Amino acid sequence: MYRVYGDILSGNCYKIKLLLELLQLPHEWVHVSVLAGETRTPDFIKMNRNAKIPVLEIAGPDYLCESNAILNYLAEGTDYLPAQGLARARVLQWQFFEQYSHEPYIAVARFINRFLGLPPERAEEYAAKQEGGHKALAVMEQQLGEAPYLVGATPTIADISLYAYTHVAPDGGFSLDAYPQIRAWLQRIEALPHYVGIE
Amino acid sequence: MYRVYGDILSGNCYKIKLLLELLQLPHEWVHVSVLAGETRTPDFIKMNRNAKIPVLEIAGPDYLCESNAILNYLAEGTDYLPAQGLARARVLQWQFFEQYSHEPYIAVARFINRFLGLPPERAEEYAAKQEGGHKALAVMEQQLGEAPYLVGATPTIADISLYAYTHVAPDGGFSLDAYPQIRAWLQRIEALPHYVGIE
Repeated sequence: MYRVYGDILSGNCYKIKLLLELLQLPHEWVHVSVLAGETRTPDFIKMNRNAKIPVLEIAGPDYLCESNAILNYLAEGTDYLPAQGLARARVLQWQFFEQYSHEPYIAVARFINRFLGLPPERAEEYAAKQEGGHKALAVMEQQLGEAPYLVGATPTIADISLYAYTHVAPDGGFSLDAYPQIRAWLQRIEALPHYVGIE
Repeated sequence: MYRVYGDILSGNCYKIKLLLELLQLPHEWVHVSVLAGETRTPDFIKMNRNAKIPVLEIAGPDYLCESNAILNYLAEGTDYLPAQGLARARVLQWQFFEQYSHEPYIAVARFINRFLGLPPERAEEYAAKQEGGHKALAVMEQQLGEAPYLVGATPTIADISLYAYTHVAPDGGFSLDAYPQIRAWLQRIEALPHYVGIE
């Protein structure tokens, strides 16, 4: 059985929970709090030298880190990950887009606003995140005008990755009012069998 | 034949060049300058709505973006990418580490210093990048003390990804003197048949 070390309120961790439920894979969830310093203990560093959640524990035990690498591992052989070729690479294209062009803006703005309460010393950084976040949302909006999911007609782990922080983007000050294709896509994901929300 | 749109001085583009040469894959290279605005033209946006290099053109034509997605596509079926399982996921773990925990510090510091000439208005940002960059290098140093390459005994595209900006880290103010395992690993990569440098 898989064991996941993470915090469900973190989109990077919630991604894993959502896929495990969609695939109905048995697992145990161990809550780890970043704010309480639990990713910096010697025991945690043994699992992930980079001191970040989520971590997937696989029988062995082996430990796999980085949310999108974990999604690829869990989705192998399922409908959520094309077996090969350009479609499979396209899934990765969107996942790397997520980590470089989406998460550093939308997830960080959400963290500053929702979890830190938008303290004055981070107001400038929060404001600076808005442009990049909207740029990422605009890229998604265009793509979702062409196909129901990011890599075509059926959902893949690219959608899981980008759903995680997009559906809570308003927590970071990003209204989704101007993005009708994104809002329709969020609803399609939320209608998938065995979907679970954050709370 | 593949066509690559990129700038060899960008580590994200150089990664693609290095793998194409290591695999001896025929290709055409089209130089695109970010500083000259060539990633923001209508023709370029048609290839990549996210307006970034590199872009791989595949017969069709189809266009694949995100440097690490391109590496995965090109390496499929070769010794540079394990066919399946935990080893394959581990390659992705290091590539996502590269894009989130390494590149935003080391590549950005290098860009500010080498390509912009460390202007006073970015000196504070440059200084702030140093801690994160050294943290990433420390994670690599520990891993490379356990195996000759990041995912075991032989080189994979995880090594290609992290080599790109690590070997020019001194351009961003990161001395590699304290990282003997990294320096030995750089030499192993530079000794691979058909290796090419940036210049």
